[in-house]
Amino acid sequence: MPTDRDLSMLRINSQRLNQRLQQLAQIGALEGGGVCRLALTDEDRQGRDLVCQWMRELGLHISIDQIGNVVGVRPGIDDSAPVMTGSHIDTVATGGPYDGNLGVLAGLEVIETLNQAGIQTQHPVGVAFFTNEEGARFAPDMMGSGVHQGSMPLQEMLAVTGIDGKTVGDELSRIGYAGDAPVGQFRARQFIELHIEQGPVLERQGIQIGAVTGVQGISWTEYTLRGVSNHAGTTPMNYRNDPGYVAACISVEARRLAAEIGQGQVATVGQIKLIPNLVNVIPREALVTVDLRNMNEQLLQRAEQLLHRRIMEIADAEGVKVSQRKLARFEPVHFDPDMISLVEETAGRLGFSCQQMPSGAGHDAQMFAPNCPTSMIFVPSQGGISHNIREYTAPEQLAAGADILLQVMLQCAMQEEV
Amino acid sequence: MPTDRDLSMLRINSQRLNQRLQQLAQIGALEGGGVCRLALTDEDRQGRDLVCQWMRELGLHISIDQIGNVVGVRPGIDDSAPVMTGSHIDTVATGGPYDGNLGVLAGLEVIETLNQAGIQTQHPVGVAFFTNEEGARFAPDMMGSGVHQGSMPLQEMLAVTGIDGKTVGDELSRIGYAGDAPVGQFRARQFIELHIEQGPVLERQGIQIGAVTGVQGISWTEYTLRGVSNHAGTTPMNYRNDPGYVAACISVEARRLAAEIGQGQVATVGQIKLIPNLVNVIPREALVTVDLRNMNEQLLQRAEQLLHRRIMEIADAEGVKVSQRKLARFEPVHFDPDMISLVEETAGRLGFSCQQMPSGAGHDAQMFAPNCPTSMIFVPSQGGISHNIREYTAPEQLAAGADILLQVMLQCAMQEEV
Repeated sequence: MPTDRDLSMLRINSQRLNQRLQQLAQIGALEGGGVCRLALTDEDRQGRDLVCQWMRELGLHISIDQIGNVVGVRPGIDDSAPVMTGSHIDTVATGGPYDGNLGVLAGLEVIETLNQAGIQTQHPVGVAFFTNEEGARFAPDMMGSGVHQGSMPLQEMLAVTGIDGKTVGDELSRIGYAGDAPVGQFRARQFIELHIEQGPVLERQGIQIGAVTGVQGISWTEYTLRGVSNHAGTTPMNYRNDPGYVAACISVEARRLAAEIGQGQVATVGQIKLIPNLVNVIPREALVTVDLRNMNEQLLQRAEQLLHRRIMEIADAEGVKVSQRKLARFEPVHFDPDMISLVEETAGRLGFSCQQMPSGAGHDAQMFAPNCPTSMIFVPSQGGISHNIREYTAPEQLAAGADILLQVMLQCAMQEEV
Repeated sequence: MPTDRDLSMLRINSQRLNQRLQQLAQIGALEGGGVCRLALTDEDRQGRDLVCQWMRELGLHISIDQIGNVVGVRPGIDDSAPVMTGSHIDTVATGGPYDGNLGVLAGLEVIETLNQAGIQTQHPVGVAFFTNEEGARFAPDMMGSGVHQGSMPLQEMLAVTGIDGKTVGDELSRIGYAGDAPVGQFRARQFIELHIEQGPVLERQGIQIGAVTGVQGISWTEYTLRGVSNHAGTTPMNYRNDPGYVAACISVEARRLAAEIGQGQVATVGQIKLIPNLVNVIPREALVTVDLRNMNEQLLQRAEQLLHRRIMEIADAEGVKVSQRKLARFEPVHFDPDMISLVEETAGRLGFSCQQMPSGAGHDAQMFAPNCPTSMIFVPSQGGISHNIREYTAPEQLAAGADILLQVMLQCAMQEEV
């Protein structure tokens, strides 16, 4: 049995990790780079088969649950809840090789490193991949982990119809991943997920590792603005009720609001539609969406309220009617302070620069956060680019993340019960 | 022969004018109201046939030119250039009964009033309808009057292909209106056109008649803005290059600019397109159009320059690349001061409130302006609405405009040569 010092020196095999990433990226590979492996397609099945084969080769005890999540567990000295990692292997239509896949294959790398070093952990250690994290074929996203951790209802999710008219349930059966393990009951000892940042912060700041503090709260609102369509030449400025102008003001106000609130507040107008959208016609209607995010629920509510008040003032002054529809609203998810510290300390011990940061995107880990101590490890995304065939993270950065994953999981799995 | 006082008391027959308007509006009538009589369609032919029949019944000498314009002339004592009125009978796809038609049928009403009163004018008097003023089926608009007055080349216009793949020349022949009268040579003594305002100014200000000073200069620019597409959650505000934000700023700046310049300056952003236009994605590209108009060419140029400078500053600060394309640029058309005064004085004499105003839309009259003294008479458009099945002007307002047209044409046609 290795000493503590031996354990702390343990490192994953970077070359093997990259080989697995490349091999998995062949399945659904796009011409010109990138991967299309939408959830529950034939490509997803092939990807699943490959990862399951690797799990079997590593001697993991595999279970497949009723929503198609696959969990592989390496037994410990005791039979308690496993220290878990995992992520997803489904991609968006033009995805890259790392989003999700890194978290799953780094998990396998942790297992193989433990196997090769002949280490027996106190508690079991497991790695999972969850069904349909991306939500690109079936909404909502994070479906598998949501059902797994009991926050989404199984039957409702099985009945979800995808963009091609097929249901989750039928497609799970078709590809042979409609398992029988029960859902909503699995409890991990801890959950720690390695993922690419999918944003530019680490790269821009020259930091190697992000210790993820949680997932930003999200507020999506769609505003429909109704004015009066008129001729751009014959209608003096003071006789206009121009919903396009109000839409533009919303975008400008959203930007101003983010600056005023600061503290990580982001605000995005990604969608504007004018009707009829002609060069010489004042539109009769405009549609605009606002995406607000913050780690602080109070600040997020303040942003929502301030923006709403200003929109109503501007629309009122322009004589434009406003109706709004909430498209999405999630409160921030806060990860476990001890787990965040453990990531930070481990990164420091291994010689990597690290900073605490929120996640701007959703991840499977957030579904575990209410039920067990959870955090995530971020590695940089080149150019902040993800959900794109140009997604890239250098091999040494992937290895750094996987080494921290290994060391964090080892420390959790070796912990004596209090 | 009536005395001058008799002449000045002459009025058109409002009921007859309305009957003709209603009869013409039956051709191409839409269910639920409105008219679709696109240029050179079967409906246009039927409309043309009806107006030509009326012209013949009124004893006019009809000529049809090579682009299908129809001119009916009532001889005068001398054989000089005629005092002309006219407009168009083609409509947009969902047009109303007055746009264009009013100017043509009020012209017939002038003729019939002169006929019934047995008045022989010094100079000939004529009424015309011009091919494809709307440009809704074939671009450019004002095609017939443009060719008629020599500012558009005949052969090029005959070769224009419409939205349905047919050419102007083929469709003219098909409907039997490919005439042989030469184009580009016709000179009117004066040209005066009655038209609905197609804007809200007269109605809002409670004025009955507009004496039209000219047609606003038009500047249409399309801006293509290129930034960096990124995730709305993971990209901090200070790392963004958001072309959608710049597009919104352009709309807001255009509005500000119009207020700053004043003096009739209008500015419209009617078109905004974001790519990919998703709620949670900072767009990579935005397309935005700006429509600037002013009666004063110097002010219009100033507006163009100021807006351009501000757009470049905003885009530069955001790290967004700008390319621009001029979609259209026309200098203002100034009508003849004496003709404008004649309209104003005549309106006053007939007891109607009147104000000078520019036209924000293009009209056939502007093609005559470089070649002879020209002006227009505007009557109010209810709600400023036009190019719409809800287009409406009350019968007494139509009659007021036609009476002024009659009196203006009479005064021009009775004028002794200097």
